[in-house]
This record gives sequence, structure tokens and C-alpha cells, in this order.
Amino acid sequence: MSATKQILDLNRFDANNTSHMPPLLAERVARRQATFGAASVLFYEQPIEMVRGEGAFLYDTNGKRYLDVYNNVPSVGHCHPRVVEAIARQAGTLNTNTRYLVRIVETYAERLLATFPAPLCNLVMTCTGSEANDVALRIAENVTNARGFIVTSSAYHGNTSAVEHISPSSFKSQNAAPHVRTVPAPDPRTAPNGDIGTQFAAQIQAAIDDLRASGHGFAGIFADSIFSSDGIFADPPGFLQQAAAIVREAGGLFIADEVQPGFGRTGGGMWGFARHGIIPDIITMGKPMGNGFPMGGVVTSPEYLTAFTRETSYFNTFGGNPVAAAAGLAVLDVIAEENLIANAALTGAMLKDGLKALQSEFNQIGDVRGAGLFIGLDFNNPASGAPDPAMASHVINAMKQHGILIGAAGLYGHTLKIRPPLCFNAGHTKMFLDTLRKILAETL
Amino acid sequence: MSATKQILDLNRFDANNTSHMPPLLAERVARRQATFGAASVLFYEQPIEMVRGEGAFLYDTNGKRYLDVYNNVPSVGHCHPRVVEAIARQAGTLNTNTRYLVRIVETYAERLLATFPAPLCNLVMTCTGSEANDVALRIAENVTNARGFIVTSSAYHGNTSAVEHISPSSFKSQNAAPHVRTVPAPDPRTAPNGDIGTQFAAQIQAAIDDLRASGHGFAGIFADSIFSSDGIFADPPGFLQQAAAIVREAGGLFIADEVQPGFGRTGGGMWGFARHGIIPDIITMGKPMGNGFPMGGVVTSPEYLTAFTRETSYFNTFGGNPVAAAAGLAVLDVIAEENLIANAALTGAMLKDGLKALQSEFNQIGDVRGAGLFIGLDFNNPASGAPDPAMASHVINAMKQHGILIGAAGLYGHTLKIRPPLCFNAGHTKMFLDTLRKILAETL
Repeated sequence: MSATKQILDLNRFDANNTSHMPPLLAERVARRQATFGAASVLFYEQPIEMVRGEGAFLYDTNGKRYLDVYNNVPSVGHCHPRVVEAIARQAGTLNTNTRYLVRIVETYAERLLATFPAPLCNLVMTCTGSEANDVALRIAENVTNARGFIVTSSAYHGNTSAVEHISPSSFKSQNAAPHVRTVPAPDPRTAPNGDIGTQFAAQIQAAIDDLRASGHGFAGIFADSIFSSDGIFADPPGFLQQAAAIVREAGGLFIADEVQPGFGRTGGGMWGFARHGIIPDIITMGKPMGNGFPMGGVVTSPEYLTAFTRETSYFNTFGGNPVAAAAGLAVLDVIAEENLIANAALTGAMLKDGLKALQSEFNQIGDVRGAGLFIGLDFNNPASGAPDPAMASHVINAMKQHGILIGAAGLYGHTLKIRPPLCFNAGHTKMFLDTLRKILAETL
Repeated sequence: MSATKQILDLNRFDANNTSHMPPLLAERVARRQATFGAASVLFYEQPIEMVRGEGAFLYDTNGKRYLDVYNNVPSVGHCHPRVVEAIARQAGTLNTNTRYLVRIVETYAERLLATFPAPLCNLVMTCTGSEANDVALRIAENVTNARGFIVTSSAYHGNTSAVEHISPSSFKSQNAAPHVRTVPAPDPRTAPNGDIGTQFAAQIQAAIDDLRASGHGFAGIFADSIFSSDGIFADPPGFLQQAAAIVREAGGLFIADEVQPGFGRTGGGMWGFARHGIIPDIITMGKPMGNGFPMGGVVTSPEYLTAFTRETSYFNTFGGNPVAAAAGLAVLDVIAEENLIANAALTGAMLKDGLKALQSEFNQIGDVRGAGLFIGLDFNNPASGAPDPAMASHVINAMKQHGILIGAAGLYGHTLKIRPPLCFNAGHTKMFLDTLRKILAETL
């Protein structure tokens, strides 16, 4: 079992260990296991049955309230009335496919594309981030006539057959596919003088050289600019510029996977890549795009899109349906009207400051880092400095007891992944910090 | 350009030919072309801007009404109020992922699985039929340790990188991938004594032998039991039994793609495969599952699903969300309460009888065939008997003028694909038949 595999199991319900479960919950879990079978993935030793969501909160079947510091899909808040209303209205009016013209679809495409720099002016609408990255793979292959891709060592880019190959965090027994090279996550602490930009670019260059030597050629790199699954590495802003330059020089495409950092999460604007001052060749998006309505997208230049459609007739039946467009438009409206990007920056800074204060108080906290409302917090053994995934697991489960949902990330699973809805406010922040302090104090 | 490519272009808007377009429509088309670029796929020489859907009808921006005899996604009728209400209610209550228990998700899984024979009792929920077939591919690969697949020569199974390889109708310049073999569509007219079951099985056996000889091994066959993209071949019921036996004997999996025939369309029950008296190893579904809400699914046995999850951690963020479950449940309810399966059988028979009567009246009609509300009608040159895709194209465009939406299918694009929502009734049938008669009479 790889180190990566440990993360996935860290917070995962174990179907072989149900002895301490209340009978009603056991019956509910049994129903899920009976239908979803081996593919069932439930959180927590005792899974939670949810019944309602609102803003930054989820409510379980016993009426217990959970502050959601984990879920980034309901990005503008659970069941945001603007988004719900837009979905309901459009679903009741017209829901068809993009072989017909539908005004709201063009309107959405124009609104979304206006947030990207030229020449990124074409949009392919899909239903998931996985489908978006699957299209991006083929665009890069067609543009470069190469098959080799580079990703970070614990990256996750989605679940299709092709995208699984570039998602090492999904691997169980198998190794990376022959046409994929991994580079370590860009952790400044590992770089001489902290110059992670130079180190990351050098590692990418070595991977490019290796792909070429082995005959695969170099098609591109997939990177989410916050390195979410790797443990969240955001700083310093701009460190991706050298990597992007190396990729371009080698004739490859830089694919910015904005499924995680996109739609304002990092607090510096709509897109994570902009924080680094780079312009990618392809941008992919998913999760927060429709606040839970299944939709994803690929943005690229007309030149690259033409190269893709030369080889295949791509059509996505549900992609770009008017209900998705309505949901997506409402999300863009809410982000603007509720100043959610500024809130991500301000509340994110408040949260990070509070966590840094906890770090000076509790030596189990090895590091706090991130951008906007995407923050990573490492637990390390105070004596040895070694990653402490057991502590992360303890905190995750204790947080659940205290009504807070949180998860872990990173190669060793010792990084708390702090990623709440963007409507997270000062009160939520205080609730989270107070609870974390209480839990840490109890472990002393 | 392959014959298959012709079908795709038969009814496709040509961006290089906009001279005769009204200025307002030209402006609307230009907006679509500017945003969707080379991946834009619009129907008709002059695309239609839709604004509203209800039951079996769509309405364009000029208030013109179209009887929908093409779209199988809004299977229980455009904007069915039961489905819209279910989506609106659940979207406003809770929309999260399957890492938590949510009662409506288990309820849906149980209701859906109850329609399948044992041992098909596990469900993987995805967002599209493409994602479902992508999962099915990997299940078959993991179960058989082989990579070779068989499909029919104009099959379409979806749009991911992996599924594109088993979708010859999407190919432009490229040939089939090395691990894929195609067999001709099961057209009884090509078989000695019309015994298509024996002929189809023999062609599959030859493809299996060839896959093995070339070292790929045999993982399975993907077939939708109505052979939708190939031109609609439904009869005689049971002809797939020999094929299924051959596949099993060879250690491969029979994957029934129910995206087209599923959810009652063929009129003999919920699933197309049941019409043939076979039990597949994997069933995939999509389009009509949520009446337009993006959802898909894979049903298989616990044994096969376990083989899949041994190698990879599959998780689908939007797959199995409570809003999808609500939409899916409403669809199952409406199918039952409105007797849509019986309606597909009865109205489908009425429609087929009417088309057969037209066949005896007009010698351009070469064949009428199908099951339930999925009917194919071939246009052939009366003198030579050759496929006449130009006639199909003429009829499609004339139908549009008369307010009826219809499309084409098949290797030569000469087959009208008659596939209306399942709420199609006797009045709609008369409207369709009268219009077709009028158009055919005018071509004499």
C-alpha cells in the first residue's frame, strides 16, 4: 500500500468494523453497502446521514449541525436560494442540448469566457471536471502529437480511464502508466534557499527529458495551482512562472486544472493561475462551477480546439444544457454580488492568522500555508518532526464530534485540508479556531 | 471521409454557409460560434433557437411549435412537472456527495436495482452515459485481464478518451484502435434465411479469435440492444442470445449499453436486453435516466465491482448526488404512473403500422423496423435499391419546416431515427404520419 493510499483510507468508513454502530445507523449503512457495494465510499468510522444544507452548514438526521470546512462543491453556500431558483426556473422552462441555440447558454459562455485572458476564448462544456480533463488530455495530444504527461506525485485530476493515469492519488497497487511522469509537490521547504520556482522547473525539465528519451514525447503538464491533493502549496505567488516557461520551451501545453482553486477560492481573483501571473494553454473546471449542479468546462484557444475537433466528433449530450447554464450564471452572479472573492481573501487571511497563532501555541502543528479559503495545516511529531497522520485522523474525528467537517490531504495524509464554502465568515472562523484549540489542548 | 462521417454531417449546420440566414439568427449563430468555436455542433442549415419545452413539444423564439420526434433525453416529456418539482425541492434541501448517507440516494438505488435480475445488484452512479461506459470498460478489463473489445461498425458509446475508441461513429480520419474490432450491424436482410442470430454470433466469434491472435485478448462486447447508431435493428427478439453465449464461452463480458433502449423505450419492459431474454454482465445507462438532469449509472454484480475497485479508488463527486436521485426517482414514478412502457408498446405499434402503410404507398421507403418508440425507416432509391441519404436529408429539413424534429442514423445516413419522448400519443402519431405522407407525396 502506497503512502498515498493511506490518505484515502484515513477518514474512510471501514465496512468490516461496524460493531459499535447504533442499530439505526447500521441499518442505513447496510443499505448503502448493499446497493453501492465495493464502490461505496463513506466518510468516518460512523458515517453521517445528512438531511439538509444551508450556507456553511449541513444538518444530520438527528438534527445535529455541522460547520462545513470540507466541501468545496457548494462553493457559494449549501442550497443557495439564487442557484436553486435558477435551476428550478430553467428546468421548468427548457432543458435540451447544444444542437439547438438557447440564449442562456450563449450568455453563460460569454460571461464565463470574459473572466479569461485572450486568446482563451473558446469553451467546451462537459458534466464533470473529469470529463473536462479528459478533453484537455486529447487537446494536448492532438496539438503536440505526443503522449507524455507530467503531474505532481499525489495529484488528482479525475476518474475517467485516461485521467486516472494522471491521478496518482487514485492508484492502489498499480504504478504510474509508462507515459506519465510525476514530480514532487512544490514544497518550498525542500528547495535550496526556498527557491521552489527554480527547483520545480528543474524537476519538470528532468521529467520532460525522460519522457522524450523513452519515446513518449511531451504533451503537457496538468497542475492545479494550489496543489490540493499534494498538501496545498500556494506560495510564493509566481513560482509557477519558471515551470510554465520550461513547458512552453519544450513545446508542451500548460493545463491549469481549476477544479480546486477556481471560482474565487484562492482570494486573488476568479482563477488560481492568475495568482502566479501565468496564462495557461488550457483551463479545466468543475466542482464549484454549478454549486452542485453537475457541470464542468474546458477553456482554450480556437487554434487548439480546432486541432482537437479535427480528429474526433466530440459532443456532450448534457454538457451545456440550459439548466447548467442557469446554475452557472447564478454562481457567477452570487460570487460578484456577495463579494465572495474578497471574502475568500479577508476571511482566509483571518483564518490563516488564527491558525498561525495556534501553531505558536501547539508544537504538533508543523506548518500552516495556503491562499484565500484553501489552507493546509500539517501535523508533525513535535520530537522527530515526522509527519503525523494519526494526529490528523484524531483531529478529523474529534472535529466531527464537535460538529465540524474537515478532511486531510498530502502524500502522508498529515495535512488538514481546510476548504470551506466561500460564504465562510468571521463567526465560522472563530467557531473553527476555538474548536481546534480545544481539541489540541485536550491532546496535551 | 468515412460513410459514418456523412451521417454526422447530414443534418449539421455549416458555419461556412450562412448567406441565406436572417440577420437576427445570424447574430445568434455567430455568438455560439464565437464561444463554442470548432466544437460547436448545431442542427439544420438554419439552426433553431429554442425557448420552451412541454410534453412532446419544443417552441422556438418565434413561437413556432415543434413536435419532438428526435430527443430521447426528455424521455417522460419535456419539463415534466413531477421531475422539475423533485429537482427543485431536493436542490433546495440538500445537495452533497455520496461520502455521506442520504436517504433518497439509497431509496433510488434500491428502486432502480429492483428492476434488474440477480446477480445484478450493485450500482455505480456517474454523471453521464459516457462515464458509465468508461467504468464498464475498466470493470471488463479488470475481470478478464484482457483489453480487446468488440462493437458494431457504427456504434456510439460515448465521448471519453477510452470510450471514443469503442465509438466508431465518432471517428473522423482515424481508424479503430488496435484493441477494438467492429462487427457489422445485425441486419436480418444480410443473413442467410434471415437468421441474424447465427450470423451475428459467427461474426463476433471471428472478432474474438482475431483479438486473441493479435495478443489483446477478449474483454467484452458493448451493444445497445436496439443498435441505435447502426440504423436500429431490434428483431427478432432473442437474436442476441447466441451472441451472449459466444461471449461468455470466450470468457468475455456482455455489456448492455441501455443509454438508448433503456427506461422503457422499446416497450417490452424497462430494459432492452430483456427483450432478448439475456442477462448481461454489466448494464450502463444515461440519457433518459434523469429526464435531462445529468446522470448515468453502471449496474453489475458484486463480484465484478470488487474486481474493479481492487485496482483503483473510484469516486464520482457529482455521481449519486441527492438531486440526481430525486430526478431519477421521479422518472421511475412517472414511467409507472403514466404507463409509459405500455404506451411505448401501443403507440409504437400504431406508429410502425402507419409507417408500414406509408411504405406500401411510397416506394422510396425501403424498410420500417424497430421496437416500441424506437423505429428506423430506410430511404432507398426505388430503382436501384441503394441507400438514399439525400432523401433522408430532404425529409429531415422538410419536417422542420412543418414543425417536426427528426434525425437520421445508420452507416449510410439513410435511416430516419424515430425516437420521440415516451409521452408520444395517438394525436402526435397522426401528426407525424400525415406530415410525412404530405412530404413524400410532394417529392413524387
